[in-house]
Amino acid sequence: MAQQHLDPTDPTAGPAPTGEALAGYLRAQATEFLRALRQYRETGTAPGTAEGSVEATRALRRSVRRISASLHTYRPLLDADWSEVLRPELAWLSGTLSMEHAYAARLERLLLALQRLSGAAVFPAQTGVATGGRVPEAIQVKAAHVTAGPPSPAPDRGNLTVGAAKAGALLERQLTLARTRAHSTALQALGSSRFHAVADKVAVLASEVPLTPTAPTADLRPLAAAAEERLADAVTALPLVTAGHPYNAAALIHGLSPDPAPHPQDAPWHQVRLLLRLHRYAREALYGDKASLDVRLLTAGQALHRHRDASEAAAAAASAARTPRIAPATAYALGVLHADQRHEVEAARFAFQQCWQKQVVSR
Amino acid sequence: MAQQHLDPTDPTAGPAPTGEALAGYLRAQATEFLRALRQYRETGTAPGTAEGSVEATRALRRSVRRISASLHTYRPLLDADWSEVLRPELAWLSGTLSMEHAYAARLERLLLALQRLSGAAVFPAQTGVATGGRVPEAIQVKAAHVTAGPPSPAPDRGNLTVGAAKAGALLERQLTLARTRAHSTALQALGSSRFHAVADKVAVLASEVPLTPTAPTADLRPLAAAAEERLADAVTALPLVTAGHPYNAAALIHGLSPDPAPHPQDAPWHQVRLLLRLHRYAREALYGDKASLDVRLLTAGQALHRHRDASEAAAAAASAARTPRIAPATAYALGVLHADQRHEVEAARFAFQQCWQKQVVSR
Repeated sequence: MAQQHLDPTDPTAGPAPTGEALAGYLRAQATEFLRALRQYRETGTAPGTAEGSVEATRALRRSVRRISASLHTYRPLLDADWSEVLRPELAWLSGTLSMEHAYAARLERLLLALQRLSGAAVFPAQTGVATGGRVPEAIQVKAAHVTAGPPSPAPDRGNLTVGAAKAGALLERQLTLARTRAHSTALQALGSSRFHAVADKVAVLASEVPLTPTAPTADLRPLAAAAEERLADAVTALPLVTAGHPYNAAALIHGLSPDPAPHPQDAPWHQVRLLLRLHRYAREALYGDKASLDVRLLTAGQALHRHRDASEAAAAAASAARTPRIAPATAYALGVLHADQRHEVEAARFAFQQCWQKQVVSR
Repeated sequence: MAQQHLDPTDPTAGPAPTGEALAGYLRAQATEFLRALRQYRETGTAPGTAEGSVEATRALRRSVRRISASLHTYRPLLDADWSEVLRPELAWLSGTLSMEHAYAARLERLLLALQRLSGAAVFPAQTGVATGGRVPEAIQVKAAHVTAGPPSPAPDRGNLTVGAAKAGALLERQLTLARTRAHSTALQALGSSRFHAVADKVAVLASEVPLTPTAPTADLRPLAAAAEERLADAVTALPLVTAGHPYNAAALIHGLSPDPAPHPQDAPWHQVRLLLRLHRYAREALYGDKASLDVRLLTAGQALHRHRDASEAAAAAASAARTPRIAPATAYALGVLHADQRHEVEAARFAFQQCWQKQVVSR
């Protein structure tokens, strides 16, 4: 049903988009990549320009994700050898560039949760944003700020318990260290010959897309539909009936499991997040800016982002609790924090289910 | 609106119930009290009859609650001096008799939650009952069993983490001690001259209810309606809009607060639980068995029971975490457990809101 509704033949009329449209999309993304790279080089080294450097890195990641997704979805229309070489390199680049932001955002999420769990007002200046106890927007704002420059002023810990304050300090130490390492790794990557080879390939792509001989007149829609079908199949396999039942207590079911591995129950949801992204970018290649207007796809994607972020934050809290020689009060606070984030996971699944159901029903 | 629907003039037709009906209700409850007391004395002392003693104690509490509630709701129709003397004695008796069961049920709830959080099958033999992860029925079954006799066989801890196992052992130690003390206190109370004075008064009540001179012909319904109005007012003051929004994360908002007192946000809900009970018993006095058929009142009451139980279980986990010299892993497990029970609190509020809303809408 969802598949029907999201049928890429739906939102536009007119001639079918062909390989030419794909080439145009790839050229635009490659141009965007080069622009971001130029911006990064101009701002990255000068002092006081960290904000611009963060913005440039984000734009780089944004175009890399789209090029990589198009290579995947529209593989049969592109030169196979070229595509096989470029895709893993883009995946490496995307992964390397995303880690610093991920650690910063995770720390902010956990510190905000500690504040909330202590009954403290969450960052008074942002109270307008932080309605309903959950503050994803505030987290993003703060996270961007943290990534941008020097560590943000520590949130007021005056009314935290000793345990919550110590837990916050421990998480800050561990995740700041991880973030710093990720920053160095990203810097090294952007200066490496491996990166320069990728940048050269993308520079060529900005003017010349290696389509197969038949691609320029081939219809893009069957390939986009296949991407959508993979998404629909993966969603069908999700436990949506459980997720749609509030307070099902499913996400914390292994909260105290001896297995230190990430919750295996999260994997299908992470997979759907990736497939939803592929579907979204496939639509962009077909319809350009018109495609990005589908608010429901964005909402579903945001729920899955929140799912991923909460899942990883919960794992970080559990991992911090295994630090040797911590005080019991610290461990207790980390336990509460872990459970809180696992409930965020459950809440995100509920939000996704509600959003997805609405798509199906509104058809 | 709810008030309209629950109007005691609604479910029955015929002549208005008067003070005579109240007298009949009180006589029946007093007779029930005496029957339960006889059963308790017959079974309580003989070995191997613990089950019967538990049943008798439950029946005692059941009739005490109803007599006490009637004295409160229909106060103007009863001899004031007699009523003023008896009510605090009934409250003392009810409180004393309920503690042992409460500690046993709390321990069972927490041990079941630890099992669930460890991803273990919850008591294989009861899997049929324990659908959906939450197992209130199983808890009650087990709790009754625990109260009844020797400690139940410890649940299989084979697949618990060290922390979960230690947390379970700590809770078992603390709550079993509390239960044993409560048992002794109840035994002493039932042998005390204070109790015999109460029993004598109830024995008189079984044949002769001290109504005021005008009571036999007075309409009971205005007093019952006043009880219902107090309930409706208290429900109106609850944050039902928040409660009706799943995953509002409100119940855990002081989860790490330095204040060791019980969550003040729970108090209005506990108050509604008591007022709902008063309303239910007031209807029983009016309509007898016909009144007890209102499934929605029972459902709302069950949600509030679950709210109270989860609230107290969460407090017990938090309190156990303050035990000196516990291992960090134990404290971590108790933190997860505390948060889990606070989410049960939130889930119970949601269930109450849904049930109450249905009452209003179905009108």
